[in-house]
Amino acid sequence: MANRDTPLIRNNWYVAARSEEITRKLSARQYLGTSTVLFRTQDGTPVALQNRCCHRSFPLSESKLDGDVLECGYHGLRYDCTGKCIGIPSQKKVPENIRLRSFPIIERKPFIWIWPGDPALADPALLPVQEFIDDPEWASIGGHLKITGSYVHLLENLLDLSHLTFVHDKTFGTPEYARAPIEVKIDDENIEVWRNVECTLPPMFAKPLGWEGDRAMRTSGGRFVSPAMVVNQAILKNLSSPEKSSDHLPRVYVESLITPETSTSTNYYFSINRNFSLDDDEVAKFLLESTSTAFKEDVVVLEHIHKMWESDQTDSFYETAIAGDKPGVAMRRRLKKMADLERHGPD
Amino acid sequence: MANRDTPLIRNNWYVAARSEEITRKLSARQYLGTSTVLFRTQDGTPVALQNRCCHRSFPLSESKLDGDVLECGYHGLRYDCTGKCIGIPSQKKVPENIRLRSFPIIERKPFIWIWPGDPALADPALLPVQEFIDDPEWASIGGHLKITGSYVHLLENLLDLSHLTFVHDKTFGTPEYARAPIEVKIDDENIEVWRNVECTLPPMFAKPLGWEGDRAMRTSGGRFVSPAMVVNQAILKNLSSPEKSSDHLPRVYVESLITPETSTSTNYYFSINRNFSLDDDEVAKFLLESTSTAFKEDVVVLEHIHKMWESDQTDSFYETAIAGDKPGVAMRRRLKKMADLERHGPD
Amino acid sequence: MANRDTPLIRNNWYVAARSEEITRKLSARQYLGTSTVLFRTQDGTPVALQNRCCHRSFPLSESKLDGDVLECGYHGLRYDCTGKCIGIPSQKKVPENIRLRSFPIIERKPFIWIWPGDPALADPALLPVQEFIDDPEWASIGGHLKITGSYVHLLENLLDLSHLTFVHDKTFGTPEYARAPIEVKIDDENIEVWRNVECTLPPMFAKPLGWEGDRAMRTSGGRFVSPAMVVNQAILKNLSSPEKSSDHLPRVYVESLITPETSTSTNYYFSINRNFSLDDDEVAKFLLESTSTAFKEDVVVLEHIHKMWESDQTDSFYETAIAGDKPGVAMRRRLKKMADLERHGPD
Repeated sequence: MANRDTPLIRNNWYVAARSEEITRKLSARQYLGTSTVLFRTQDGTPVALQNRCCHRSFPLSESKLDGDVLECGYHGLRYDCTGKCIGIPSQKKVPENIRLRSFPIIERKPFIWIWPGDPALADPALLPVQEFIDDPEWASIGGHLKITGSYVHLLENLLDLSHLTFVHDKTFGTPEYARAPIEVKIDDENIEVWRNVECTLPPMFAKPLGWEGDRAMRTSGGRFVSPAMVVNQAILKNLSSPEKSSDHLPRVYVESLITPETSTSTNYYFSINRNFSLDDDEVAKFLLESTSTAFKEDVVVLEHIHKMWESDQTDSFYETAIAGDKPGVAMRRRLKKMADLERHGPD
Repeated sequence: MANRDTPLIRNNWYVAARSEEITRKLSARQYLGTSTVLFRTQDGTPVALQNRCCHRSFPLSESKLDGDVLECGYHGLRYDCTGKCIGIPSQKKVPENIRLRSFPIIERKPFIWIWPGDPALADPALLPVQEFIDDPEWASIGGHLKITGSYVHLLENLLDLSHLTFVHDKTFGTPEYARAPIEVKIDDENIEVWRNVECTLPPMFAKPLGWEGDRAMRTSGGRFVSPAMVVNQAILKNLSSPEKSSDHLPRVYVESLITPETSTSTNYYFSINRNFSLDDDEVAKFLLESTSTAFKEDVVVLEHIHKMWESDQTDSFYETAIAGDKPGVAMRRRLKKMADLERHGPD
Repeated sequence: MANRDTPLIRNNWYVAARSEEITRKLSARQYLGTSTVLFRTQDGTPVALQNRCCHRSFPLSESKLDGDVLECGYHGLRYDCTGKCIGIPSQKKVPENIRLRSFPIIERKPFIWIWPGDPALADPALLPVQEFIDDPEWASIGGHLKITGSYVHLLENLLDLSHLTFVHDKTFGTPEYARAPIEVKIDDENIEVWRNVECTLPPMFAKPLGWEGDRAMRTSGGRFVSPAMVVNQAILKNLSSPEKSSDHLPRVYVESLITPETSTSTNYYFSINRNFSLDDDEVAKFLLESTSTAFKEDVVVLEHIHKMWESDQTDSFYETAIAGDKPGVAMRRRLKKMADLERHGPD
């Protein structure tokens, strides 16, 4: 099973940034341990190149753009947007083979996606579907957090929501959540988990819906999409006042977009989609605030776990798996398989 | 000989905390590299368990107590005070073999002692004797310091007090101290050192006794008790005014209680016992202040040595032993033997 | 070729400090990874000894001088100025073989030089020549900077000044500098580079000479002297008003004196010599300010490169050499040869 020591999976689309973060100003970011420089060309196309000058390792992010040419701030080597070196001040001819690695990149607002692996495999069709981005029946808000910890632990966190009862007892969770039986669908294609929780909804859902105090059925799902994405959703049915959800069931659909900076630090983008109160700014604001509060609780948990792995020197420690880990364990096996495939090729 | 790289000795009683530090509030501490959670049960019994949840490494110290049950703050695994897992919210049955390591612990006020090694060997009879704890002829005060450095160097510091002349020239030491001949008793049972120093006593002793300016015989002893304890004492005889010590000789008996957090950080508890001015708060206060000042001088020395070991990159460096090192070298041999025994068993 | 991982070259004279930095106060410094204590004897002679007491690794720099005897602050071991131990308080006889390593040291104002390697090889004739130190036709100013980065990268920086156009475009550099052809002289004895740049001089030269706006020929040279020293100079000829340089050509002669603390931190002393405006304090002040500004730009570059090497985790990265690297590459080969010779002896 994959863990914090498993090689990072490079042949995969990851969120590189939110669209508005990448401009004409050079921006340095690390993806899967690789220092990368991002910018937009004059026509607005985003570009991602190896940040390390081929010559003497100077960060091109500390250099400058001359039109669409990236000119190294140390000895003036000039690179075009494909990474090819097209000028070296101290010599007349530029050898063919001097080039920065260029990373496939796709902008699909509100995000820019990057493929840190083999460009030949960077099929745009592999870009994970964000279902409700342009759906007029849905509204969306989002945020970003940074975690000092392994992305594997974040994926796992999102695939076993029994932690809602303990970590998020003031936001997402209710006491009966952890005990609700789960139904999993795990095969070569899918890693999916569902549970039905009859409960008094937590404030995060009850307040924007005006269901405070009502009993409800909360149908809660999680799905592993890729190393870069997990989807969680809640489908809500009012049991106390059935008429309140007779038209259509309110849904909250959360996309967690996960980009390892290194094996011990992780960027965490999230997109919260809803199919109710579409134009209500108060609801949007409340949802963003309570989600951010809850996700910060996860960050605290994941950073505690990171510190434990870093500091505890006990000789041998094996983690025990429990029933709720079924999707998480399947995900860890999937990651391990992907990592092995990248390193050793198919069997 | 043992040094900072020698494995820590686990089969030994160490001071875990002062009694009043362990309460119903969960407390995380590291002993010999192992993250540990401590608390008291409802009836006041102190408990020490592995701090790392068996499931996903969450620190139980960041969790909560439900009566005497420790409930993990991540997925709600429940552990009794023996470390046995007795509840997993996401599944009905709890496998027999899920348990936190539980550490033998004994409270003998003012300290709580822990045995980080094999519980089968944790004989309470091995608890080092603290001679004057309940003796009405003696009074006691104590303190705590933290050292970034090896516990071996602290033990060594306490077994060669020739450093008093140099490190503690304003508190404990006098010029003739370092040159006084030592008498050692070193065999399979004992590591002990004595010296007689005729001197004008340093203020730390002279002031509380009212012997300022008097010549005195200071009989000074040190004894290695265990990797967790060294005892030092001074027996004082007034030579200028013999009547001042004719009744009984004033003694100061210092227990140094040493607990390695890791091989490069050390908790240092100390207990200063005296057989004079038992009810004099001024004397108690003065003794505590001057002892603390002096022990902080030792901390500075030990941290300098730690930094030297960490930063100096000279290829080969061998420490030279001198006459004053006899008890320290014997202690290092003893530690090495204990460490080897723990790892490889008896020859 | 040498790089940041190549062993440091010990058999070489390095600047230890500026003369005025070494006094009767004990001073701790690290040269090539070795902690060293420096001071002056009562007659003013500078001394450099191993800083680590032979006994228990206490830093002698935290100790005290008793006349010309260095007395360890821990157990009072006494060392004379050759490093020989001449007193141990806790024993009567001092074994012959206890001694601190003593480093050959030469004072040639304004610097004190140290030889961190085999003292038998420390020939004063190997001390690099500082040509204009006592020449009444020249005036000198100097400064010091500290770099978190490899000394190899600093040597390289000084041997390929094509970076002036990019790093120092506001101080030293002009646009045509990087493109000017270079002439190199590289053989077993020399690593030297020259270029002629016809240009409008940058303010650093134009202002003190009163040549602002004039066209000039800037003849620019660099020479590798030793791992501890590179010399760069500019010889200036006024083309717009030839009479301004008809008497003698103004020259600025920069000695860069480089002392690795460790393989990733470097002390950088520099001495700026000029053969014009000898008594003009304004010119001296202006030159020192602009040089310091420019050299700090180099520090920023070198620290960026250091961070890139430390943080970028890309599997394989090979630096590409370009035309301007000829002297730098020759220097790296020379260092490698010197390092190999030190470790393995001559072939």
